Amino acid sequence: MAQIIDGLKISAEIRAEVARDAKALAKRGVVPGLAVVLVGENPASQVYVRKKKQACAELGIASFDYDLPASCTEKRLLALIDELNANPKVHGILVQLPLPGQIREAAVLNAVDPAKDADGFHPMNMGRMLNGEETALPCTPHGCQQLLMRSGHDPAGKHVVIVGRSNIVGKPMAAILMQKAAGANATVTICHSRTADLPKITRQADILIAAIGVPEFIKAPMVRKGVVVIDVGTNRVPDASKKSGYRLVGDVDFAAVSRKAAAITPVPGGVGPMTITMLMKNTVEAARRASLRRKPGNK
Amino acid sequence: MAQIIDGLKISAEIRAEVARDAKALAKRGVVPGLAVVLVGENPASQVYVRKKKQACAELGIASFDYDLPASCTEKRLLALIDELNANPKVHGILVQLPLPGQIREAAVLNAVDPAKDADGFHPMNMGRMLNGEETALPCTPHGCQQLLMRSGHDPAGKHVVIVGRSNIVGKPMAAILMQKAAGANATVTICHSRTADLPKITRQADILIAAIGVPEFIKAPMVRKGVVVIDVGTNRVPDASKKSGYRLVGDVDFAAVSRKAAAITPVPGGVGPMTITMLMKNTVEAARRASLRRKPGNK
Repeated sequence: MAQIIDGLKISAEIRAEVARDAKALAKRGVVPGLAVVLVGENPASQVYVRKKKQACAELGIASFDYDLPASCTEKRLLALIDELNANPKVHGILVQLPLPGQIREAAVLNAVDPAKDADGFHPMNMGRMLNGEETALPCTPHGCQQLLMRSGHDPAGKHVVIVGRSNIVGKPMAAILMQKAAGANATVTICHSRTADLPKITRQADILIAAIGVPEFIKAPMVRKGVVVIDVGTNRVPDASKKSGYRLVGDVDFAAVSRKAAAITPVPGGVGPMTITMLMKNTVEAARRASLRRKPGNK
Repeated sequence: MAQIIDGLKISAEIRAEVARDAKALAKRGVVPGLAVVLVGENPASQVYVRKKKQACAELGIASFDYDLPASCTEKRLLALIDELNANPKVHGILVQLPLPGQIREAAVLNAVDPAKDADGFHPMNMGRMLNGEETALPCTPHGCQQLLMRSGHDPAGKHVVIVGRSNIVGKPMAAILMQKAAGANATVTICHSRTADLPKITRQADILIAAIGVPEFIKAPMVRKGVVVIDVGTNRVPDASKKSGYRLVGDVDFAAVSRKAAAITPVPGGVGPMTITMLMKNTVEAARRASLRRKPGNK
């Protein structure tokens, strides 16, 4: 049977490091701070925001909460972003999506100071990432990279096949792993809905990253024996045996693929726990960089 | 024998379109303008700058020349960039590299208003490109895409293998071709010095893009019959039979590979002529976007 890559355990490891780093910064007078902006009362968004605040509390990160009504104007939200950009206690800014229809998401996200972009989605940071410069990385693909490294599957020299080209997973994942850098140096193939003969490509993967959002799309015949699988999918499928009426499955047919794989992430408990953890890491890293910028002699 | 993809002919086609667009803009009172900044007296840089100014003159683009001494300070250069950012007659700014050692290249390039970034290398534009947003694209990879499209080799659904991961060719080339967009939609693999069994990967390419900077690195056994080859390399190799003492060769063994390929770019006369042409296109596009922003009712 395959090695199960335990996202809960690896996430806990990283959280311990982040808490240690936050404590060291606090001792030097810099308490890392994350501003969490929620507009309206979307129940799913409320759950995510609560989890993020809880993670902050556990790791010694100050969280600053801004709950705005669903009727909030773009102008008012942009004014808040300006205020947070200028606030030295705030090192990371997270605007929970989706935003109400009257607000242009791109206008708001691009207004965040790239140095305080906790999500790593600001175009400036996406560009720096592609150029191989040090910057905040998008949380989910960065989490996938950490899962690989910390489970003994360094992607260096390996053929990584990514299925899916979303702006939040597939594209940044490719950009991260193609770099000439530690934890990267992979030969990267990115596949998608227009790929001809997908199984021919996926069967070549030493490492397969599935991020398509289709339940159990990757079947056993699509992978080679010994593959390492990172399953980014989190899909709800109806299940009458569950109290909730559904269960979570990934983009990979876990039961069948895990019999051929050398290692695989489960769903839940694989990539899922990593996203908020990497958000916390980005916040503490942003605080560290801000503290360096403020030292005399640095600019 | 393979179809020869004629970069001079395709470049001339695009230049005619750019000249037509520039003329249409000028009729509406917006003469596209490119500021060309040269610091010091590097002979190669002087040649490039001269070619760029000449292209501007031919296509109806105003060029504004700034020749600064090699002793120029970073502060002085940044002050010039600020001035050009504010100048409404300047739609594109090109700072010829390399810059003298006392000036940090990244500080200067990042100071250019992304809306006036003629090269498409500003991190903000690299990020927008990766996100699939409309923006200035880096000239050489954008030129390669045009060579494919205009020679009848749409990359949609094809497996494109890129050899080389530089910030100016390989990485942006991958980012351009992986998009869900016209002229893209390819399955993209990016290979490099750390790729294991490179020939196994390159032999799968429907389209092979060579950008490694090693003379004639791609040999016939590394490609499959019927491949389309874009050779980005421009390498000088000693040749006693030439007056100059050298000749130009690409990253592909043209004589051997052209016998297996369906289509191939020559060196010189393939990718080379496209780079300045795409710079001209970026400038006129920037002028067009600026003219739209200035219309009443737009922001």
